[in-house]
Amino acid sequence: MKRGRFIAFEGGEGTGKSTQARMLAETLRRRGIDAVLTREPGGTPGAEAIRSLLLDPPGEGWGASAEALLFAAARADHVARLIHPALERGQWVVCDRFVDSSRAYQGGAGGVGDDAVRALHAIGSGGLRPDLTVLIEVPPQTAAARLARRDAGRSDAIGGRDAGYHAQVAKSFRALAVGEPAAFRVVDGDAPVDEVHARVLEALATLLDEAST
Amino acid sequence: MKRGRFIAFEGGEGTGKSTQARMLAETLRRRGIDAVLTREPGGTPGAEAIRSLLLDPPGEGWGASAEALLFAAARADHVARLIHPALERGQWVVCDRFVDSSRAYQGGAGGVGDDAVRALHAIGSGGLRPDLTVLIEVPPQTAAARLARRDAGRSDAIGGRDAGYHAQVAKSFRALAVGEPAAFRVVDGDAPVDEVHARVLEALATLLDEAST
Repeated sequence: MKRGRFIAFEGGEGTGKSTQARMLAETLRRRGIDAVLTREPGGTPGAEAIRSLLLDPPGEGWGASAEALLFAAARADHVARLIHPALERGQWVVCDRFVDSSRAYQGGAGGVGDDAVRALHAIGSGGLRPDLTVLIEVPPQTAAARLARRDAGRSDAIGGRDAGYHAQVAKSFRALAVGEPAAFRVVDGDAPVDEVHARVLEALATLLDEAST
Repeated sequence: MKRGRFIAFEGGEGTGKSTQARMLAETLRRRGIDAVLTREPGGTPGAEAIRSLLLDPPGEGWGASAEALLFAAARADHVARLIHPALERGQWVVCDRFVDSSRAYQGGAGGVGDDAVRALHAIGSGGLRPDLTVLIEVPPQTAAARLARRDAGRSDAIGGRDAGYHAQVAKSFRALAVGEPAAFRVVDGDAPVDEVHARVLEALATLLDEAST
């Protein structure tokens, strides 16, 4: 059995990555590729329970290092129970956020540092990397307008942090993509969803061509 | 303000460490020392929420690395919100289990490894060590008899693991104490509680003498 491919979507809040992850999974299935759509934090019963603690914290809210450890714990469960077995069965996995979100949010914007986040990922999930990570970027004002429509003033403990935090997240994502060009495809998400989807397919052309041969 | 002292109790299930931790905190208070009694996993609202996930896992139960990450996350919250501020205020902290439990259970018996558990503790809690760790040891048959009385056949996801796991935990604790003699005091817990309490006070004599001068 040929191992499946693992594709992660990354970006800040309101960039449209969840929509694009769903559209990619649907296109893969139409092309006869068995694809699993999942998300982080979450994807398994254990990881979804941790997601609830992360987005609606008991007490005073999590410090940056506790938050990084909880994300790594959720990811360890997700990788062991869902992602790894699916890839081994030959399925493709399309994941809405993966370790690069921890690197940008907790590692960069939260101040935990990239080395620490990578160490947690090595301990928790054997350092598993996607075959490709699609980073979707939109201008801050586009993201803000989408979020205002979507959340109608409500947001969770992480999405609700201030503009400076989210600007640092965007900067951290960009630095990761620039530093690891073979691992990332950067896609401009400031366009209608079908147009962005076409850009995603183009960014993944080599992987998709390999799958159809 | 002089920093308080931090004393941890360690040992397997049924060794009597929770009782001894409580008795020590009471004796300290009778001697005029402001002492906080706490436990792991737990001690803060965030860490108690993680404790619930650990002892009653959703889904299939946690793998060893997810479990180690969850313990480290709970400890990071506990250290940041309770232990560190109490010590800074000059209070003594008496804690029922601390990082050496993670080293013995997840690191040794769970197979995660001591280096990984120490790395998680460095990232989560700055590597904080107790001033002294009291390891209480009892023969396996004594622990089993106490647990049978206490739990009446019910136990949690960790306490309920098989005898081989718990034997490995005891062996790992012993190896830690032998390897780091300055950090540990080993107390024989196979005696009436008052007698064991007297042994604990004797093991802590130097610290207690310093406090009364």
